Amino acid sequence: MNFRILAKVLGLLLLLLSVAMSVCAVFARVDPMAVKLNATWALFTSAGVTFLAGAILILSGLGKFDRIPRREGVVIVGLGWVLSTVFGALPYMLCEPHLNWSQALFESASGFTTTGSTVISDLTLWPRGILLWRSATQWLGGIGILVLFVAVLSYLGVASKSLFRNESSFKTGEASTARIRDTALTLLKIYLGLTGLCLAGLRLLGLSWFDSVSHAMTTVSTGGFSPHNASIGHYTGWGNGWAIELWLSVFMVLCSLNFLIFAVIAAKNWNRLREEDDARWFLGITVGISLTIGLGLFADARYSIDLVEALRESWFIVVSIASTTGFGTVDYELWPAWCKALLAILMIVGGCAGSTAGGMKVGRLEIFLKSSAHEVIRAFRPNQVFRLVVNGSPVDDASRARTTSFVALYLLIMALGSVVVGILEAGHGVDLETCLGAVLATLSNIGPGFGDLGPTENFSQLREPTLAFLSGLMILGRLELFAILVLFVPAAWRRY
Amino acid sequence: MNFRILAKVLGLLLLLLSVAMSVCAVFARVDPMAVKLNATWALFTSAGVTFLAGAILILSGLGKFDRIPRREGVVIVGLGWVLSTVFGALPYMLCEPHLNWSQALFESASGFTTTGSTVISDLTLWPRGILLWRSATQWLGGIGILVLFVAVLSYLGVASKSLFRNESSFKTGEASTARIRDTALTLLKIYLGLTGLCLAGLRLLGLSWFDSVSHAMTTVSTGGFSPHNASIGHYTGWGNGWAIELWLSVFMVLCSLNFLIFAVIAAKNWNRLREEDDARWFLGITVGISLTIGLGLFADARYSIDLVEALRESWFIVVSIASTTGFGTVDYELWPAWCKALLAILMIVGGCAGSTAGGMKVGRLEIFLKSSAHEVIRAFRPNQVFRLVVNGSPVDDASRARTTSFVALYLLIMALGSVVVGILEAGHGVDLETCLGAVLATLSNIGPGFGDLGPTENFSQLREPTLAFLSGLMILGRLELFAILVLFVPAAWRRY
Ligand SMILES: [K+]
Ligand SMILES: [K+]
Repeated sequence: MNFRILAKVLGLLLLLLSVAMSVCAVFARVDPMAVKLNATWALFTSAGVTFLAGAILILSGLGKFDRIPRREGVVIVGLGWVLSTVFGALPYMLCEPHLNWSQALFESASGFTTTGSTVISDLTLWPRGILLWRSATQWLGGIGILVLFVAVLSYLGVASKSLFRNESSFKTGEASTARIRDTALTLLKIYLGLTGLCLAGLRLLGLSWFDSVSHAMTTVSTGGFSPHNASIGHYTGWGNGWAIELWLSVFMVLCSLNFLIFAVIAAKNWNRLREEDDARWFLGITVGISLTIGLGLFADARYSIDLVEALRESWFIVVSIASTTGFGTVDYELWPAWCKALLAILMIVGGCAGSTAGGMKVGRLEIFLKSSAHEVIRAFRPNQVFRLVVNGSPVDDASRARTTSFVALYLLIMALGSVVVGILEAGHGVDLETCLGAVLATLSNIGPGFGDLGPTENFSQLREPTLAFLSGLMILGRLELFAILVLFVPAAWRRY
Repeated sequence: MNFRILAKVLGLLLLLLSVAMSVCAVFARVDPMAVKLNATWALFTSAGVTFLAGAILILSGLGKFDRIPRREGVVIVGLGWVLSTVFGALPYMLCEPHLNWSQALFESASGFTTTGSTVISDLTLWPRGILLWRSATQWLGGIGILVLFVAVLSYLGVASKSLFRNESSFKTGEASTARIRDTALTLLKIYLGLTGLCLAGLRLLGLSWFDSVSHAMTTVSTGGFSPHNASIGHYTGWGNGWAIELWLSVFMVLCSLNFLIFAVIAAKNWNRLREEDDARWFLGITVGISLTIGLGLFADARYSIDLVEALRESWFIVVSIASTTGFGTVDYELWPAWCKALLAILMIVGGCAGSTAGGMKVGRLEIFLKSSAHEVIRAFRPNQVFRLVVNGSPVDDASRARTTSFVALYLLIMALGSVVVGILEAGHGVDLETCLGAVLATLSNIGPGFGDLGPTENFSQLREPTLAFLSGLMILGRLELFAILVLFVPAAWRRY
């Protein structure tokens, strides 16, 4: 392990965070709705501390590096999210009405991992400067995951590798620093463009600048933080509430697709677009389940609702969950059990690789389902040779094994995580559904869970160790397991 | 598809069933505790109908066959369990107090798949002849799964193939009919031996002949039907109740291990025994979780209980669930949520391949966990070559992919199954936990589930289509998915 590379890159990351905190501090200072200046103080202090830590790291890591070796890259990603979470928690601890350490850590992790679960019961008690920082952490987390996906996570999985196949900059095996920089820049432009477009639309639909910026940042990052207690339900009563929901749902869908699709579309590369199974699957699943639930709610006598309203409700919630954003309008805890079970499946599946969405990713579902279908046929035709193709790329046995391992590991962590939550909360009367919901909500970076942690509830009822554990799960899920699990392998830390 | 082979083999199966029914009918006739003879009539009538159907099938399938081709073999297994279930349901429908078609089908499937879920609220209302038939279906299902595992399922999975590696009769690839017959005979002898030993012990511990025979048959098959409403809790008050529980738990453990282990031990082949990872893993998991839960219950203030009692309760329940038997003493629904989550994990994992236990099998868990560990290390050492060894046999990439596909498919069926149960029961107020519990209990062939289907409840509260669906899940799980899924592939049915 080359610790100087680690120190330098992580130091740079902290400087970047410090700049973002400063911007929020400036807003907190000039915000006409601010009644006290404690947000300004909290944010500037946090920015100062973060800057100091960053500077020390950079100074201890001086030297020039052409490229980051793979092992260091993986470790940087893992530690990067952990450090961001720790320093990003400072403003919540310093500013009134104060969160305790575990709550602040949870809220910060929920931001940087674009999860959107919250421990804050009443957002109106918090100054807007802090709420802006809260939304900003999701926006930073969103671009972070896109860039780091290209730089590091693309090593780790099939689904990812095939994405870059036809991109000129990714024609051959491992990516060089220059190529990574090119693709990362493309992604940054797309991300900025989508944020701007989303913001402009919200502004035109009548939201304030603050609301528009906040929601644009947490929509394109599929984060799901809202400055309102009722989330998007805040606007449901508005005359154009349906238009706001529709506009947000469009961006939630777009930001669950591989962002490079937009580059492919811009280049009019229709052949490449046609091969993009992920997007087709994601759209098919989302539309199909939203129709199913909408019709089911309409048909359910106990849930008396007209057809249009049922489809509107189910479309927004299904898109919100499928894209792992987690915005809320209605309380899906009131839906029948089978609708909730479908939502739970959407939570596990998540969005497409190369997007800001969480979950285990649609591409992995494809590989695993096709692979399973082959195994069924192999039961009576053992010698038949199968060619598994996903997103236009062939998938070999080793990749199949890797992907299905991932799927199963994801589900195992879910099961064991529920046990841990149950143990940590023992004596507080949580039921199995709440435990599983807590793990699903955080590991898949959704936000709201089930049971006592449903969309109208929050996580502040949980104990300190549980919050710390769930913060870990958010980062574990966000970095697709391996980049965090690696941190626990002693061999990864050995010096050269 | 060669339909004449199908007809002949399935016809023979029905004749065998008819003989078993006749034996129960004779018992019903001579049983001194029988108040009416309607059980005798019901069983003899069922035996007659079954014999007739079997005879017709055999006559339509005359001809001599050296061996059963693979495709036919797979289809025979699937259809065999379906046919047994259908004909096995007759006695429950014919005898007072009568089950309806879906309940009878469910009870019969629960027998032949060694699941042990029941729709019968009060067993004392049923004549002992029928209860004997009920236990006998589990015993027949148990030996059936052992023999068919050797004959057919061994085609289908890694875990299974490696089991026969060192057996003289399985040295080379695909098994011939003669070799299958040899191994099947060995298994039959072991099965009979274990049943006899279990029976003798129960008799010595003071159980009646009827109770001893019933429990011996449902213990070695890890079935879990009991002729008592309170299951093994019936004996808990006895002075030697602990000895009965202990004796049964020993046999539940033994019958969750690969039955060929007993042949290996008899041959004093210690090297082979040392390679048997499955048994080590199963014992480790069972002992570990039973200690964890026992200490947890002891430490839990709301569940005031002394240490010995806590360990006794947790050992029996954990063994009962881990072995997928499903006998009950205490109501684990009263345990804290984390204990139930651990039980749910045990339900998914199940026993060892080559045993009568259900679940997805410990061997698959091993392959998938080891495979996942390799992927984590591969994240920073992409070129490292891994050799995955399970039960002393190397596992190649294709087998890894097959196994992890299976694991993920199993979990997917679990999730989708819960949705289906939720939809079928919509309007009856079932919660998510009950839906998931119903699927776990049946797919993994456990017996009792969670929530409203916990160990003190039964499945009679469910609607007809739900019961039919769950019967299907039992067979799907029992035959390790593929042998049933194949029935839905049109190509499997094409004539030559
Ligand atoms: K989210
Ligand atoms: K069972």
